[in-house]
Amino acid sequence: MTYGEDRIYKKVEIIGVSKSGFEDAIQVAIAKAHKSLEAISWFEVMEMRGHVDTDGRVCEYQVVIKVAFQLK
Amino acid sequence: MTYGEDRIYKKVEIIGVSKSGFEDAIQVAIAKAHKSLEAISWFEVMEMRGHVDTDGRVCEYQVVIKVAFQLK
Amino acid sequence: MTYGEDRIYKKVEIIGVSKSGFEDAIQVAIAKAHKSLEAISWFEVMEMRGHVDTDGRVCEYQVVIKVAFQLK
Amino acid sequence: MTYGEDRIYKKVEIIGVSKSGFEDAIQVAIAKAHKSLEAISWFEVMEMRGHVDTDGRVCEYQVVIKVAFQLK
Amino acid sequence: MTYGEDRIYKKVEIIGVSKSGFEDAIQVAIAKAHKSLEAISWFEVMEMRGHVDTDGRVCEYQVVIKVAFQLK
Amino acid sequence: MTYGEDRIYKKVEIIGVSKSGFEDAIQVAIAKAHKSLEAISWFEVMEMRGHVDTDGRVCEYQVVIKVAFQLK
Amino acid sequence: MTYGEDRIYKKVEIIGVSKSGFEDAIQVAIAKAHKSLEAISWFEVMEMRGHVDTDGRVCEYQVVIKVAFQLK
Amino acid sequence: MTYGEDRIYKKVEIIGVSKSGFEDAIQVAIAKAHKSLEAISWFEVMEMRGHVDTDGRVCEYQVVIKVAFQLK
Amino acid sequence: MTYGEDRIYKKVEIIGVSKSGFEDAIQVAIAKAHKSLEAISWFEVMEMRGHVDTDGRVCEYQVVIKVAFQLK
Amino acid sequence: MTYGEDRIYKKVEIIGVSKSGFEDAIQVAIAKAHKSLEAISWFEVMEMRGHVDTDGRVCEYQVVIKVAFQLK
Amino acid sequence: MTYGEDRIYKKVEIIGVSKSGFEDAIQVAIAKAHKSLEAISWFEVMEMRGHVDTDGRVCEYQVVIKVAFQLK
Amino acid sequence: MTYGEDRIYKKVEIIGVSKSGFEDAIQVAIAKAHKSLEAISWFEVMEMRGHVDTDGRVCEYQVVIKVAFQLK
Repeated sequence: MTYGEDRIYKKVEIIGVSKSGFEDAIQVAIAKAHKSLEAISWFEVMEMRGHVDTDGRVCEYQVVIKVAFQLK
Repeated sequence: MTYGEDRIYKKVEIIGVSKSGFEDAIQVAIAKAHKSLEAISWFEVMEMRGHVDTDGRVCEYQVVIKVAFQLK
Repeated sequence: MTYGEDRIYKKVEIIGVSKSGFEDAIQVAIAKAHKSLEAISWFEVMEMRGHVDTDGRVCEYQVVIKVAFQLK
Repeated sequence: MTYGEDRIYKKVEIIGVSKSGFEDAIQVAIAKAHKSLEAISWFEVMEMRGHVDTDGRVCEYQVVIKVAFQLK
Repeated sequence: MTYGEDRIYKKVEIIGVSKSGFEDAIQVAIAKAHKSLEAISWFEVMEMRGHVDTDGRVCEYQVVIKVAFQLK
Repeated sequence: MTYGEDRIYKKVEIIGVSKSGFEDAIQVAIAKAHKSLEAISWFEVMEMRGHVDTDGRVCEYQVVIKVAFQLK
Repeated sequence: MTYGEDRIYKKVEIIGVSKSGFEDAIQVAIAKAHKSLEAISWFEVMEMRGHVDTDGRVCEYQVVIKVAFQLK
Repeated sequence: MTYGEDRIYKKVEIIGVSKSGFEDAIQVAIAKAHKSLEAISWFEVMEMRGHVDTDGRVCEYQVVIKVAFQLK
Repeated sequence: MTYGEDRIYKKVEIIGVSKSGFEDAIQVAIAKAHKSLEAISWFEVMEMRGHVDTDGRVCEYQVVIKVAFQLK
Repeated sequence: MTYGEDRIYKKVEIIGVSKSGFEDAIQVAIAKAHKSLEAISWFEVMEMRGHVDTDGRVCEYQVVIKVAFQLK
Repeated sequence: MTYGEDRIYKKVEIIGVSKSGFEDAIQVAIAKAHKSLEAISWFEVMEMRGHVDTDGRVCEYQVVIKVAFQLK
Repeated sequence: MTYGEDRIYKKVEIIGVSKSGFEDAIQVAIAKAHKSLEAISWFEVMEMRGHVDTDGRVCEYQVVIKVAFQLK
């Protein structure tokens, strides 16, 4: 990539879920998107949420991210 | 679905239009997305707008929603 | 298009980059999306950014837009 | 209207109230604005609120909208 | 209530769910809050969402509202 | 006014300026709007700003408010 | 309180009303909440509004605040 | 204008449209508002959008602005 | 829970503090709320902040969350 | 200053604290910034908060403002 | 720069003014900041405003941007 | 510090980058700011982003924070 060159990126909104934490949930989402969509360049966190089990423990972390990749 | 399991969802932004009301516009958008994209799990309303005819009557309701579905 | 008719649009978020200015960056993004995605109807500007070279000159304009097209 | 032609619209913020629901409140506001202001082209919903009576029933729906019309 | 008199209100955030539509979901939430919390004076819609069944039909409407009541 | 009755309000955005403080700036704006527009029912504060003189003293308070009045 | 110690606070949204000004409306709300809820630690202003009488005078100031207190 | 003097401004939301670019669309809106409303002092850009023709070219730029003028 | 069934949830805003990180601060808040309020179903992160000691080390993580539970 | 002349301003975010009220807290912050930074031209209020003592009285007002000054 | 390497950037908010347009106003601000602050890497547009002369012509464009540079 | 005492803080926006996670990126930014700017009192997270390498792994975490310190 050279700065100033005409180019275009696309951003897609995905949600990753993991029981291990927010960073793991991001990695889960990106690994999957990387395979099925396109080679991701960067991500931006939009929302962080989670589910709580009946014992009052966080049993999963959910993270809404936007991932961006270059359209070639 | 089991809580805590690694998984990923995608959110897509669509606009439904109907002359009958906002809930009908949502259903129009989801029915169409359900066929052409993927099996939708949930939706979130982003914007509600509409068009007015020359007699001052709302002639169509437009609703911008995000729909989410699991990537398998 | 007739007002009141059931229909549905999709919005996609893309980023155009150009060394010539924001309007050129928009046109770059739309021209590309128009070919690879669908016939775009309209766009909405979400963010405007840019890169600066070591001489303190803006060397590229980046514009995040949402483009909308009808799903048929 | 031809695309690309120079023109200008004005947006005005109004609140419609009705006991029958949000869509009715929108129609109440637009019908009135259509007569006293100008021929409205479109509206955008900004806020939705309501009043509750002493029996716990919604007794009126209030909707804040922006209406737009062309300045000729 | 006389304007200008010292007084205080409390706002509580609740979510109503109904299969019949957003206004019904609001009424469900308010009827319940009216009994278990306090006599509600007004509500403000914060978010509108819903669930979609496997046939692509909206099977429930969810509405996040804030309800307000006077603290006496 | 009876709750549930069809009615419509208009909101107008004005800026009041006073050297005495924000509440005075609000009163300045409302007194003037009350005469030249319509009988104002309520106001909502949107932004608060001010100007500083060369001695580092606030020399005027500026407050952007929306005022609402019933359209009859 | 020692920094780094596990602890938890709750935030509650209340509205204070006074004819004397916004700071008085805050004090009205906090004095009342302090008695009926818990010992308040801090507050954050969310919205400022007011009512106008038929002579065009602000007759009451309304301030929406969040108050926070430690859960012990 | 002297700082500290009581005065009041009004803000009006308008949309300018031009095929030549965003700055031209702003000028179109302001020139028109300047004649039909009042002598405008300043403007603030709220939204930037545009229409795309069937060849994938931006055929008009739309800019939503607020214009402010002093009420005398 | 069956989709489509009438039901209602409440959301409460709490702040968890921990010296070990944001996820730990969330767990601290939820464990406490789970006992003193109700069985929490899910949480949403609103704000993330922290305190820094005089050596420039983060000595506590503070996280503002909304927790939701069903009102039965 | 002449309109149209090339020039540049800087905005800095500061927090003023006073036991006497929000306007006093603004003046405290500006007086200090005026000396240690640059001659301030204007300010914009971003947030208003405060601390409450154990008797339920506001014991200090905190106001987050942005101050702007010309870079010469 | 190598990805993954520990590093830190600072963002500063500045306002550029030019009679020639928004992109020129950005360049004015960046050229000046580049000299007096640090070598700027990128910018983000926050607000776009302008002043109008008594003939209804935009006589200056004002653009609020954040500029970022690496702290070494 | 005594509550109620006149004082002033400054907030500065910085970006920390680390390959190890968001909390590490915050610590990187604060450690550096603590040395080159002033003794930081607290921080607030504004944005969380990251870069992805060609294998679909997050190779760096970027966190935009505001840090605050007292001006003495």
